[in-house]
Amino acid sequence: MAGKFYGIGVGPGDPELMTVKAVNILKKADIIIAPLSKTGRKSIALEIAERFVNKNTKIVELEFPMISISENQKFLNERWNENAMIVKKYIDEDKNVVFLTLGDPMVYSTYSYILDVFVRNEIECETVSGIASFIDIAAKLNIPLMQGEESLAIVSLTQENSEIQNILDANKNIVVMKVATKPAFLKEELLKRKLSKNFVLVSNIGRSDEKISKDIEILDEKLPYLTTMIIKKGFKF
Amino acid sequence: MAGKFYGIGVGPGDPELMTVKAVNILKKADIIIAPLSKTGRKSIALEIAERFVNKNTKIVELEFPMISISENQKFLNERWNENAMIVKKYIDEDKNVVFLTLGDPMVYSTYSYILDVFVRNEIECETVSGIASFIDIAAKLNIPLMQGEESLAIVSLTQENSEIQNILDANKNIVVMKVATKPAFLKEELLKRKLSKNFVLVSNIGRSDEKISKDIEILDEKLPYLTTMIIKKGFKF
Repeated sequence: MAGKFYGIGVGPGDPELMTVKAVNILKKADIIIAPLSKTGRKSIALEIAERFVNKNTKIVELEFPMISISENQKFLNERWNENAMIVKKYIDEDKNVVFLTLGDPMVYSTYSYILDVFVRNEIECETVSGIASFIDIAAKLNIPLMQGEESLAIVSLTQENSEIQNILDANKNIVVMKVATKPAFLKEELLKRKLSKNFVLVSNIGRSDEKISKDIEILDEKLPYLTTMIIKKGFKF
Repeated sequence: MAGKFYGIGVGPGDPELMTVKAVNILKKADIIIAPLSKTGRKSIALEIAERFVNKNTKIVELEFPMISISENQKFLNERWNENAMIVKKYIDEDKNVVFLTLGDPMVYSTYSYILDVFVRNEIECETVSGIASFIDIAAKLNIPLMQGEESLAIVSLTQENSEIQNILDANKNIVVMKVATKPAFLKEELLKRKLSKNFVLVSNIGRSDEKISKDIEILDEKLPYLTTMIIKKGFKF
């Protein structure tokens, strides 16, 4: 008999933003997999979930390098396969294994690569949703993401410039993730579209060093990794 | 002294998908506002939250007509203002008032119109995120919404055709809400883009009459109101 594999979203930062279901699954976990961007760093997802973890539960930290996927496809595929096989070993030992994800497991997550391997190999996975960071930012700022007959696009600034430009043109509301990668490009695109008053920029939401700005000049500065922009064409911030 | 106003997302259907924070706020509510699309109907949001509500809490049902916003702007504005004033009366009586929203309060919600009125009048609002239906659908089907260098757009099929076409072209992943309004149009656009194998259609997710289809011919049928499509250009379903 094999154990069960769960991927749970722990939300954006506040432990109380975890779902009741995620907390219940966490409490009965035998093994918790905490993804790390680099060995030696702390897992933010684990910090969030920690208060709900039993003291007998084994914590396994797995490294998922945060590097460009398009430039490192083969290396990353091997890494994801290796990590998936480590997780599979625990499932085969009849353990309940819970993989933690910051935010939601289906929104830009490392979990989704393990899931891809497992789904291909017909290993049962239960995914439990979490609050994505852009959802939390909108709530904290009391800014509806979209209403009525509007769309929303969520774009990563690591995408190709032409793709990003098309998305900026096609949608009334746009969430831009990973703003720190190309802030100068984003500034130019906002100015071209006369959107310099139509955005809010948030770094490290909910953390002690949280920063919120509506000033386009902020895009000239060095920004933290966790920086997100909300653009609303129909709204002046 | 005035009470406090909370807008909380109760998630897509399973009460356990409510956040710990939403449950805690609900337990200490004096008044719960449950939006109805029509007087006499049951509030789905209230059904989800019910198990966490104290028996002394007063339930107030408010009608929010589900009609086209662009065609009924003035009528709806008046309605939202009236409803906001009803809610404000309770806050002024020093009550903790909790407004329930299906899914997330910042994603196509009636709450966002009350929020607009309150923010304009500088009434304090605390919004607590919930799991949006499209997030839950992705989790249940184990389909990542977006990975790495991909975007996601969420579009309502009530938008103008040209807008929808641009969004279908600009994004790799698209969630289409309110599919029941123009299924024939959507079918044609999928066929034009050779995307007839690149989608999954889900009606009434998590309910007893849940239906999942990957067959394009389903778009010729009459579909339930709560029908959502996930399109992934890089993935065959």
